[in-house]
Amino acid sequence: MLYFKEMRYSKLFAKTLREAPKDEVSKNAKLLLKAGFIDKLMAGSYTLLPLGFRVKEKIEQIIREEMDATGANELLMPLLHPKGIWNETGRWDTAKEIMYQLKKDDKEFGLSFTHEEIVMDLIRKHATSPKDFPLKVYHFSTKFRHEARPKSGILRGREFLMKDLYSAHLTEEDMYKYYWEVADAYLKIFKRIGLEAKIVEASGGVFTKANSHEFQVLCEQGEDTVYYCDACDFAQNKEIFEDNVGDECKKCHKGKIMEAKAIEVGNIFPLGTMYAEKMGVAYGGNPIWFACYGIGPTRIIGTLAEIYGDEKGLNWPKSVAPYQVHLLTLNNQDETVAKKADAVYESLLAEGIEVLYDDRVETSTGAKFNDVDLIGLPIRLVVSPKTGDQIEWKDRANEKAELLDIEEVLKRLKS
Amino acid sequence: MLYFKEMRYSKLFAKTLREAPKDEVSKNAKLLLKAGFIDKLMAGSYTLLPLGFRVKEKIEQIIREEMDATGANELLMPLLHPKGIWNETGRWDTAKEIMYQLKKDDKEFGLSFTHEEIVMDLIRKHATSPKDFPLKVYHFSTKFRHEARPKSGILRGREFLMKDLYSAHLTEEDMYKYYWEVADAYLKIFKRIGLEAKIVEASGGVFTKANSHEFQVLCEQGEDTVYYCDACDFAQNKEIFEDNVGDECKKCHKGKIMEAKAIEVGNIFPLGTMYAEKMGVAYGGNPIWFACYGIGPTRIIGTLAEIYGDEKGLNWPKSVAPYQVHLLTLNNQDETVAKKADAVYESLLAEGIEVLYDDRVETSTGAKFNDVDLIGLPIRLVVSPKTGDQIEWKDRANEKAELLDIEEVLKRLKS
Repeated sequence: MLYFKEMRYSKLFAKTLREAPKDEVSKNAKLLLKAGFIDKLMAGSYTLLPLGFRVKEKIEQIIREEMDATGANELLMPLLHPKGIWNETGRWDTAKEIMYQLKKDDKEFGLSFTHEEIVMDLIRKHATSPKDFPLKVYHFSTKFRHEARPKSGILRGREFLMKDLYSAHLTEEDMYKYYWEVADAYLKIFKRIGLEAKIVEASGGVFTKANSHEFQVLCEQGEDTVYYCDACDFAQNKEIFEDNVGDECKKCHKGKIMEAKAIEVGNIFPLGTMYAEKMGVAYGGNPIWFACYGIGPTRIIGTLAEIYGDEKGLNWPKSVAPYQVHLLTLNNQDETVAKKADAVYESLLAEGIEVLYDDRVETSTGAKFNDVDLIGLPIRLVVSPKTGDQIEWKDRANEKAELLDIEEVLKRLKS
Repeated sequence: MLYFKEMRYSKLFAKTLREAPKDEVSKNAKLLLKAGFIDKLMAGSYTLLPLGFRVKEKIEQIIREEMDATGANELLMPLLHPKGIWNETGRWDTAKEIMYQLKKDDKEFGLSFTHEEIVMDLIRKHATSPKDFPLKVYHFSTKFRHEARPKSGILRGREFLMKDLYSAHLTEEDMYKYYWEVADAYLKIFKRIGLEAKIVEASGGVFTKANSHEFQVLCEQGEDTVYYCDACDFAQNKEIFEDNVGDECKKCHKGKIMEAKAIEVGNIFPLGTMYAEKMGVAYGGNPIWFACYGIGPTRIIGTLAEIYGDEKGLNWPKSVAPYQVHLLTLNNQDETVAKKADAVYESLLAEGIEVLYDDRVETSTGAKFNDVDLIGLPIRLVVSPKTGDQIEWKDRANEKAELLDIEEVLKRLKS
């Protein structure tokens, strides 16, 4: 739980940069680096600086609430896995290209890029009765996945954060019942985060003949291509789409098929019984049904930067903004102004409102305004010699600024 | 933030086990495994199951609050590091024995067991003005440390959780000012968690001639040996202690020196200027002063199991118990009893009290009572045909049981 609701910008580690590093090509990395949300350790690996960390925490809390609401249990599984468990499904060899593997004292280990094998091992040890099903567990954890030349900022890294949920069932029917419940939960999550995601049919990969589903956000900078109907909810990814752009939709027979670039922000797989067969998890002679569900919090941060970022900077939806308000004081060498701004700051804190307070004294007005736009909190409040007893209110999303009394400011922020 | 305050035991993933796995020798691992708080993936590596995960979350939140109160900024640094950055301090080679290192596509990476190099890199990129100091950042993250034959359960693993805080200062004086502030914060943290920790002098290791300090909890099962005065706060570890057990204390000249086994639950290092010198971080020609501070949440879970565990099971301090109340219903084939227990459950939830509700129907009374003692929540409440309109209250810590009205139960729980 984020504990402190406020921060003086003078005390914040990692301020905005004048220039984004020249080696970054993606919009998300440029904006997030310049605004001080992330730092790059190496290609495909970033530190979440305090502002970025807060966004991550808010995204995770939204995901956690919706996962818990489906009856899932949160836990935390290890990242370094023994070779043996990956050998049981044959993936030690088949995943060699993307998995970091290492040897130490004659023992071999792999770094997790997913946790199916580990969950299946937990199930065979702990789900000893049919009453233990359906079984739903998830965790937030770091994933490692080798990329030779990562270039999409935090959309695709060597190291990233994932929420992965796994469910196990005695029947296929029960698996699909929960599968669609999670699909609904995912749509709720993305909506709360400020993203409009389409459910896109995709192939099931090597472990199931059934289709899996991706959650895609349309975005020109996306690495994926999706085909969708402009009238109904039909949507397929490139792998399985077999018609032509412009065709009539086969599902509703009304709309037309469109093509668009998109970012995959989540996916769900009805894996079926293959894992249980390979790892020997069965009840009454029948292998259990298994499904997995992923959402990447760091990728979501990148997607929000791509979708909402403009030429001035970032622009966070209220639900995941690191702070709600950017309070700004101009000409605060003037003691009266500084005192007034401090009083406004205190009033906001007393009401439990999350504030980033730019209390810097020697910074120019222009630089302060630029930083506000770059950091992109939902609301800008200004206290200056010109605002008198009032406060200037401006939303990040539009140009209109208004002068308001403190009472009106608090009322709006609490509504 | 833990979202759901309640759990029906029937829906909880991973119940208690009849027997602890035979290959475990440590008390903490035996109790935690048997009670369903952890699962063992391999030697030195454990999953935190839902109950264990909740304890971890509570411990972390206490640490977070006290770290934030010192003005530290929370962030999140990567776990997979490029070889180059570890070469700057020479630790790629000197730490080879304990660090997991790997090669992929001709690139070399190491898995972090600590983050000094990464923080120093952040400082040289982001702390561009003397005004940026003092600078205090921390994160909660996974650490990897090779152990050939781990045997202390979650007290010492190949993979474990750490809170590591780092501070940077322009002067030695400023470093020590914050160093002792953190020492105080640590004592507060351990006290809130239910541990009595001694500050024990230790050597500074390779990077500083100054002493460092360990936070040690006296415990027969501890791997460390400490020497302390039975009258004052003098305490040293084995490395630097030069007197004899039974001697008069050199500090207070009153007490006697005692020897005891202990578990190290935290440590703080005034690292000095060596990192800054090696990595080129200086202001006005002077290298910055650097210190680091660690606490291990998983190790704390193990310590609590060692200290508070008894022959019946675990016994959690209120501040970190996964739930406050274990509500139990006996003979709930009887519909009246089941209904009454459900009503008590609802009353507890309505008051925001965290409850684990054993609602199992076919489980024997004896098994239910054993599970309550094994899991070790602070308070046991029983609803049975014998309790009539009242509820039986018993603390885990003592034998006395009382019959109380629901109003009295709620009053006590909220006080």
